[in-house]
Amino acid sequence: MASERRSVLERALRILASFQNSGGPLTLSEIGRRSGIPLTTTHRIVNELHEWGALERDHEGRYRIGLRLWEVAAHAPRSVGLQRTALPFMQDLYETTHRGVHLAVREGNEVIFVERFVTPDSASSGPRVGGRYPLHATAVGLVLLAHAPVEVQEEVLGGPLESYTPHTYSSSRELRHVLAEVRRSGYAVSDRQINPAFASIAAPIHDADREVVAALSLIIPHTEPYGPSLAYLVQVTTRGISRKLQKDPEPDV
Amino acid sequence: MASERRSVLERALRILASFQNSGGPLTLSEIGRRSGIPLTTTHRIVNELHEWGALERDHEGRYRIGLRLWEVAAHAPRSVGLQRTALPFMQDLYETTHRGVHLAVREGNEVIFVERFVTPDSASSGPRVGGRYPLHATAVGLVLLAHAPVEVQEEVLGGPLESYTPHTYSSSRELRHVLAEVRRSGYAVSDRQINPAFASIAAPIHDADREVVAALSLIIPHTEPYGPSLAYLVQVTTRGISRKLQKDPEPDV
Repeated sequence: MASERRSVLERALRILASFQNSGGPLTLSEIGRRSGIPLTTTHRIVNELHEWGALERDHEGRYRIGLRLWEVAAHAPRSVGLQRTALPFMQDLYETTHRGVHLAVREGNEVIFVERFVTPDSASSGPRVGGRYPLHATAVGLVLLAHAPVEVQEEVLGGPLESYTPHTYSSSRELRHVLAEVRRSGYAVSDRQINPAFASIAAPIHDADREVVAALSLIIPHTEPYGPSLAYLVQVTTRGISRKLQKDPEPDV
Repeated sequence: MASERRSVLERALRILASFQNSGGPLTLSEIGRRSGIPLTTTHRIVNELHEWGALERDHEGRYRIGLRLWEVAAHAPRSVGLQRTALPFMQDLYETTHRGVHLAVREGNEVIFVERFVTPDSASSGPRVGGRYPLHATAVGLVLLAHAPVEVQEEVLGGPLESYTPHTYSSSRELRHVLAEVRRSGYAVSDRQINPAFASIAAPIHDADREVVAALSLIIPHTEPYGPSLAYLVQVTTRGISRKLQKDPEPDV
């Protein structure tokens, strides 16, 4: 009975996950193919997910993730809760600078972007919300890696460091040095390390236990001069978010 | 076997739903109590949800909705997809007016807010993102009700119309008249009908099938004079969002 339970729930979760990177609604057979589950089983589980509202059907009978699942997921404190707390501060920074502003958390060895303010010229590029990126190539990633558990740091430093531009850190020795500097200075800079047109400056967000739970970055054209004042600007913003988060750790999302 | 499958999945979904309105992390026994599921079963299902990342544990061993569920739910086109499309337009409207901007969809007989820009003085009040509100008392609700299927309209018109302030529409005859006017004019006004300090002006957002899929509103202090130009401002914004949605119905969220 336990294995039956496991297998049904595990399949249902696999069906939901099959919508990631689908880029749109899926037919029943596409869901079956993507999740590797026999069609009759897929059909039964999809029906039940649809009944509950975790999936919705469009005019053509294809399925998509439903509003009901989003309502439940809107209570994830590491995404929406954090986003709600950070949003007014991000708004202020964006309105003041008219530069892109990104908010990200670490999940394992990757960065996940949970919110972004984009300028019209960068709206189509830049990270997707909900998208995963490597820790070593983005400014938010460098901040999160600098404050990650030693095991995570060693895994990233020991693994291959993928190059996105000629500026991406590719030597673990250099990266180790950079991480120490990020911890010392309280901010990180990614100068064309993932996108050849942009630089970004990131600083950490701390929770009530003084742990680094997120990072926020300001994106500038790489041709624009940057000095300490830009780092101060980001740090003032992340301090404001940290203070709010420490006072009200579970905001009403 | 089918009933076993149904019951496990249904219980797992009930466990996830128990986090709605929880206002924070839950212990195992709180989850069991809220979902009405025996503790040993709760324990097994929670373990599996935790393993997959749909739930996360905090320092004190309590559970909360996990980032992984949010990642999957971030593909719900009626919330996050719509929100991504609307966000730059909402940003422009907010920056220009410095007034609150709300985005909402209809789910059954209720309004769900999917995004909001708030002014510092209204940040703590106003609708919660992911929160449900009645259709007849908000400007976005009046727009969505005016364009809802006849059955939905008749159900709302036939049911009790709860009063939130002395200005809430409480007679179905009056409400019917208002809905006709909303369809004719292309916008709706809620003048202190849900919050005694604010008025809001809302207009519909249309998808590629020309159906009304969402509504957007601008919030102003009720003491501020409003004329047709404010409605034009909202309508220009919703037309922009509609056009974008029609060209790119499944944006890269």
